[in-house]
Amino acid sequence: MHSWSFAKGHGTGNDFVLLLDRHGMTDPSPEAVQYLCDRHRGLGADGLLRVVPGSVVPDWSHELSQWFMDYRNADGSVAEMCGNGARVFARYLLDNDLASGPEFTIGTRAGAKTIQVLDGGDIRVGMGTVTVGDDVVVRHDGRDWPAIAADVGNPHAVVLVHRSDLVELDLARTPTWDPPEAFPEGVNVEFLAPPEADRTAVMRVHERGVGETLSCGTGTVAAAAVLGQDRAEAHVCPMTVPGGRVDVALGELDGRRREASLTGPAVIVAEGEVHLPTDLPDDRLLR
Amino acid sequence: MHSWSFAKGHGTGNDFVLLLDRHGMTDPSPEAVQYLCDRHRGLGADGLLRVVPGSVVPDWSHELSQWFMDYRNADGSVAEMCGNGARVFARYLLDNDLASGPEFTIGTRAGAKTIQVLDGGDIRVGMGTVTVGDDVVVRHDGRDWPAIAADVGNPHAVVLVHRSDLVELDLARTPTWDPPEAFPEGVNVEFLAPPEADRTAVMRVHERGVGETLSCGTGTVAAAAVLGQDRAEAHVCPMTVPGGRVDVALGELDGRRREASLTGPAVIVAEGEVHLPTDLPDDRLLR
Repeated sequence: MHSWSFAKGHGTGNDFVLLLDRHGMTDPSPEAVQYLCDRHRGLGADGLLRVVPGSVVPDWSHELSQWFMDYRNADGSVAEMCGNGARVFARYLLDNDLASGPEFTIGTRAGAKTIQVLDGGDIRVGMGTVTVGDDVVVRHDGRDWPAIAADVGNPHAVVLVHRSDLVELDLARTPTWDPPEAFPEGVNVEFLAPPEADRTAVMRVHERGVGETLSCGTGTVAAAAVLGQDRAEAHVCPMTVPGGRVDVALGELDGRRREASLTGPAVIVAEGEVHLPTDLPDDRLLR
Repeated sequence: MHSWSFAKGHGTGNDFVLLLDRHGMTDPSPEAVQYLCDRHRGLGADGLLRVVPGSVVPDWSHELSQWFMDYRNADGSVAEMCGNGARVFARYLLDNDLASGPEFTIGTRAGAKTIQVLDGGDIRVGMGTVTVGDDVVVRHDGRDWPAIAADVGNPHAVVLVHRSDLVELDLARTPTWDPPEAFPEGVNVEFLAPPEADRTAVMRVHERGVGETLSCGTGTVAAAAVLGQDRAEAHVCPMTVPGGRVDVALGELDGRRREASLTGPAVIVAEGEVHLPTDLPDDRLLR
């Protein structure tokens, strides 16, 4: 029976299995990822973060000494970038003396990302550029909701709602949108209640291909950018999601684009050895 | 930061966190159980199995050298017995040289239970007595389904259905029943398609207070007893549940009662150290 060392961690309830692969020799197959992320038969997670030196990643030419976040969805597919995952990845590097604060960079399929470790332990991740797009309509729960498109490397539609709507929303089903060609590859939909008196903005999200999640890093950035689209100056937008609280920092507006970073907690919950299933033969464990 | 050693295992997809407590010194509080069983912020499981010597369990007078299965639901409440949990508990004892096959007994809040380790690795658990009860009606999905009550220490209502009904059933909502006084403390509802040609009986279950689950040990026993209520002789009823395949062995009929055992797989998936959350102070970690 094969066993792999693993860690498990989460950022605002978005949870990940981490595998340290120092020599690029343990690149799990989609089946192995599905097993590890299976919440009943495996360890259980929203996705897997393989921790691998940039020097062994094909096509990675930035800085070969960096650690590369090889991120997979729970279904085993390869994904580009995940804001909450990047925080958990950074926390893992810090806890295991593989990186040291207060600032370092990590590699991702969406390019190198800057990590900052704040006093108190929260982690800030550079999220690149967010661009606010056109008006669209989201159809959900028998209603037409005016929405605004936003792009954070992946597509979003942000619906501004009242707090009372947010409580009642049933996000079990997948929203549709109009015009259909606005999001040919699907869209993440954020329902966002603006800040009020001493309460932060509050958001719920339906992730493309997943359903409602406790937190979506790019979704909070998209929502903050739509909320701040008329504020030209740099500012911070605190945001409450079902899994906790994050801060989105937005740079100065440049047309409809601006730089963004995401700050929030990240914690390693457990470390151990996971046994690979006997019905998954050796030649199907690795890619 | 406190850490506890843990294992995680499952039987037909019914999954458990195991804590070995050799000296009765680590009896987790409901809050700690909730954390360990949280699928996003903790390890994630349907329940927790504390592995503790019978000698340190108050009121346990059977055999003090036995290991006692201190079973908790994911919400932290104390529970009596769980057929799938007992198999996983037995597998843990075997894997850690705390018991040896082919036969031993374990303590549970529902009394001592016999464990048999079969060739091939499946584990058989003595489930005690199952009693078939009266006709009732289950109301679900806008239909009235004739059902038969059964008692396996906990209450069940078994509905015989066609295989096609089984596929289409939406078990997201909780069934109701008539007469209401038949199950004053709620009921587990099994929808059961009888065996056909070379196919086993197939069952889906709505567990009281939980929702649809991949497998329910007592539910398979209740379903087999209802299916075999006119067969007086001892026999085995193979049963397919969403999480896999188990065999229910029924003893000779004695009125409407008979002895039952449950045989199925059990596997330990992982071992490791879990870090307790910093927002759970020391004095709230233990009962």
